[in-house]
Amino acid sequence: MPFIYYLDIFGTIVFAITGVLAASEKRLDLFGMIVVGVVTSIGGGTIRDLILGRAPVFWIAEHCYIWIIVITCILTFIVARFYTFPRRALLFSDAIGLGVFTVIGAQVALNLDHPPIIAITMGMMTGVFGGVIRDVLTNEIPVIFQKEIYATAALSGALVFVNLRWFFPDGSAAFSAIVAMLVVMGIRFSAIRWGLQLPVFLLSKRPGEE
Amino acid sequence: MPFIYYLDIFGTIVFAITGVLAASEKRLDLFGMIVVGVVTSIGGGTIRDLILGRAPVFWIAEHCYIWIIVITCILTFIVARFYTFPRRALLFSDAIGLGVFTVIGAQVALNLDHPPIIAITMGMMTGVFGGVIRDVLTNEIPVIFQKEIYATAALSGALVFVNLRWFFPDGSAAFSAIVAMLVVMGIRFSAIRWGLQLPVFLLSKRPGEE
Amino acid sequence: MPFIYYLDIFGTIVFAITGVLAASEKRLDLFGMIVVGVVTSIGGGTIRDLILGRAPVFWIAEHCYIWIIVITCILTFIVARFYTFPRRALLFSDAIGLGVFTVIGAQVALNLDHPPIIAITMGMMTGVFGGVIRDVLTNEIPVIFQKEIYATAALSGALVFVNLRWFFPDGSAAFSAIVAMLVVMGIRFSAIRWGLQLPVFLLSKRPGEE
Repeated sequence: MPFIYYLDIFGTIVFAITGVLAASEKRLDLFGMIVVGVVTSIGGGTIRDLILGRAPVFWIAEHCYIWIIVITCILTFIVARFYTFPRRALLFSDAIGLGVFTVIGAQVALNLDHPPIIAITMGMMTGVFGGVIRDVLTNEIPVIFQKEIYATAALSGALVFVNLRWFFPDGSAAFSAIVAMLVVMGIRFSAIRWGLQLPVFLLSKRPGEE
Repeated sequence: MPFIYYLDIFGTIVFAITGVLAASEKRLDLFGMIVVGVVTSIGGGTIRDLILGRAPVFWIAEHCYIWIIVITCILTFIVARFYTFPRRALLFSDAIGLGVFTVIGAQVALNLDHPPIIAITMGMMTGVFGGVIRDVLTNEIPVIFQKEIYATAALSGALVFVNLRWFFPDGSAAFSAIVAMLVVMGIRFSAIRWGLQLPVFLLSKRPGEE
Repeated sequence: MPFIYYLDIFGTIVFAITGVLAASEKRLDLFGMIVVGVVTSIGGGTIRDLILGRAPVFWIAEHCYIWIIVITCILTFIVARFYTFPRRALLFSDAIGLGVFTVIGAQVALNLDHPPIIAITMGMMTGVFGGVIRDVLTNEIPVIFQKEIYATAALSGALVFVNLRWFFPDGSAAFSAIVAMLVVMGIRFSAIRWGLQLPVFLLSKRPGEE
């Protein structure tokens, strides 16, 4: 499906950029930064492929991914010397990458005839884990633990996509993918814009204290 | 072997709960918390399966695991609003999960005809890595690095189990498993209760300073 | 190729020692320390094998690795009580391990007929990830993020090795490996000695501020 393929390239580029932007505050050198960009970009898909038993993983067979990421990282490195990225660029590009990778992760699992629960889990994992690995490597508290709805956005997108594909198997995969990505981005953008959050889990919370 | 199967379900539930309890102090939202619960619960077994070449990993084929974990996390979330878990609940349930997963990890390796050293290593890894991933994700110093004997408990349990299976191959697997789990839990409970610790490794330690 | 095999054993021992030395400041007990030693030593190669689809991974089939690492860790533990390792021992032995594992990672990928870009990536990953996992587990900022050129050293070594093998396929693999390892160690030693660093990426850097 060429549509998914182009999306994958797009998500790869976006996540590589977020990796570089996240690394920027850690004073990494050029190649350390490329390592973080590569890991952020292919981390989620790599874990998905390993768990589903698709080995060697996707970027070994199609090594254009590595080239695209390395070139993206170097360009970002150069551009950032002449142009100061707005502070929110990291959060917003991360939201786009989250949407794209969630849809792709779910689609890969569906292609292998796994049931919806596995497709939804794989969608979330593909979307969330690239950023989690980036944050663990740069010693940050993962974005997933910040108060803005993050895993929830990925879950919602995966639910929408898998249900659309499940109930309308003859419909357009591209349409389902776009709707699901818009759901993820909409939730993330709203959460960032208005500081939305789900009820937080507190051990010490008493009933009725909502 | 149905006995091992039920144990696995039990360990899965216990580790999901420890994941939720560990996440509770980080103010995760409901679904972020479920992600931590899932990763804690299936992390060790997933790494074991990947390393042993059992792909797709166990919870892809038997997707009841995901359902059980998600339901456990939601129930824990709800119960924790009406009932304050005692502070030590995390440490004690972690010890039970450690015992169960150590035995299962070793058994899986033995089933694949790997030698005892590999079975012992896989037992330790299965037991220890779920909690390590949980602690890394929630940005805590891993329990494994706290002074109470932790990896040692898993190692002891794995040694006991593999030796019992090796020297009494016709004996009851369930009996060996129970003995080994009691060893793990006994060591952990004692270590927590009396603050036991092994000799600590110190670079600056002089001979005779014991 | 027996040469590569002996190198692998050597790198395994060296990285196990760095794992133990890194763990030494965290007051781990004996077996917690062994876990860190094992993970540091086989982490990079394990990730390489998983990604390339070589499962079960190398140390399952040849379980001498586990024995060697465990014995190395225990010996290091004992020796360190009678002899204070010089402060720089960790950095220097890490540089040797980095060189060895970079070469081996690239060679493994070439053996499987992967193209140079994949071999270079696998070389870097095999070299860098053992130390990264060690640093993440001991809750340190990964060496890769410190200012001394680290990923760059691995990249340079991988480039040299893969190019030598590519353009002189009939030449000696041992010679190519030695040259590449010397490149890695030379870069790391120089970087440590003179505090060399690549241009650092800064979002806030203005043009001309070089």
